[in-house]
Amino acid sequence: MNLRVILVEPMYDGNVGSVARAMKNFGFHDLVLVNPCKIDDFGRAMASHARDVLQMSKSFSTLPEALRGANLVIGTTGKRLEHEQHHLRLHLRVPCLSPAELSDKLRGKDGTVALLLGREDCGLSSDELAICDMVVSIPTSAEYPVMNLSHSAAVLFYELSRNGNENDECVEMASPESLALLREKARSLLQEISYPEHKVEFSSLMLRRIFGRAELTEREARTLLGIIKNIRWKIGCGSDENEVADDPSEE
Amino acid sequence: MNLRVILVEPMYDGNVGSVARAMKNFGFHDLVLVNPCKIDDFGRAMASHARDVLQMSKSFSTLPEALRGANLVIGTTGKRLEHEQHHLRLHLRVPCLSPAELSDKLRGKDGTVALLLGREDCGLSSDELAICDMVVSIPTSAEYPVMNLSHSAAVLFYELSRNGNENDECVEMASPESLALLREKARSLLQEISYPEHKVEFSSLMLRRIFGRAELTEREARTLLGIIKNIRWKIGCGSDENEVADDPSEE
Repeated sequence: MNLRVILVEPMYDGNVGSVARAMKNFGFHDLVLVNPCKIDDFGRAMASHARDVLQMSKSFSTLPEALRGANLVIGTTGKRLEHEQHHLRLHLRVPCLSPAELSDKLRGKDGTVALLLGREDCGLSSDELAICDMVVSIPTSAEYPVMNLSHSAAVLFYELSRNGNENDECVEMASPESLALLREKARSLLQEISYPEHKVEFSSLMLRRIFGRAELTEREARTLLGIIKNIRWKIGCGSDENEVADDPSEE
Repeated sequence: MNLRVILVEPMYDGNVGSVARAMKNFGFHDLVLVNPCKIDDFGRAMASHARDVLQMSKSFSTLPEALRGANLVIGTTGKRLEHEQHHLRLHLRVPCLSPAELSDKLRGKDGTVALLLGREDCGLSSDELAICDMVVSIPTSAEYPVMNLSHSAAVLFYELSRNGNENDECVEMASPESLALLREKARSLLQEISYPEHKVEFSSLMLRRIFGRAELTEREARTLLGIIKNIRWKIGCGSDENEVADDPSEE
């Protein structure tokens, strides 16, 4: 999917530069401006290392020119009033989506998607919204719903870029065997330290939950086993074990 | 959940103002600055209708002061290098989460969560990241991963505000005092059980990470303290304590 970002009559070059930067941060490069303000030094400074995006941007005097070749047109609106939403939904029949919903809809889609961002003071007009296939709105606080243009852009780019492939690196998680041993040893330990009998069950379960939530690595599980071993040896319960060891890597 | 946004040594007042605006857009109001630049007219202009957030912000000269009372500390990093991630994960085992993962983890949690955002040029230092319970990183393009400070903030606020109006029941997170006591007692215990001296430092840090990642509740922290108390009593180190107790609610 190619995302074409279309700024409709942006008023401040700083915002244009900021949007260019946010685009490049999330891997987007196709910027189109409709009737923009003059882009000066401040705009270029705000673009920072995304000046190339700014330089390669195209400017048109009308929206239809900017939309040429787009497979899907997405409008943006900050309007949060029930009435407005209603209007958008029922009279224009433009679906008003959250950024996450939009991202889901575009997943696996090929083609050019035009994302329209409106003027800093009044956004997109009703006529402009009416030609959109969908409208996206960022859920904001009723107390102060009006976001800075480049902030809205950054949030949308963030959501839309999540469709790419995420490359998580892996760490070795604790094996089921180590976890089972850890739970068993922790439970035995409670009994060996004369922990109140009626609480052993509950506290064992609590420990199990804590181990689970912490998503222990194999190394951490072994370190914990080593600590328990030390404790048992210290309290004289370690007679069946020949040595005090921290973790198997040293045994 | 109260989100405390902590800007560590911000260099440009425009960014501070922009962050204040983004906070209010997503319903957050608790802004704390550590050693900030001077906030001038430009900063106030960028805050726009969120000048109240800027005015009510607190400034401190050190990070520990800014963190006072926080139940959970979240660092942010833009570092995307494999090596860095590796370092974060394997040596400190600070979980490096995506914004969505962080949002999921905080769902239904009660208490104050401190979100640390670093300097515009170099982010948070290794020492600052080391005291965080978790670290969040926004997945960006390898071509240009460095986001504008207020853009990163807006994306994080967007994700974290998604937990807002859901009606989950909340659990009481462990207090900073209980966590500090638990870390201290766990460390002392390692020494008392004749744990290899050269491993005490590393294993204490590992325990700290495990406690942090597990997002202990107050009740769990107290149960763990009770278990340690029992162990100390059993190994004859508990002479300064009058009784064996599980948790303070029963004392």
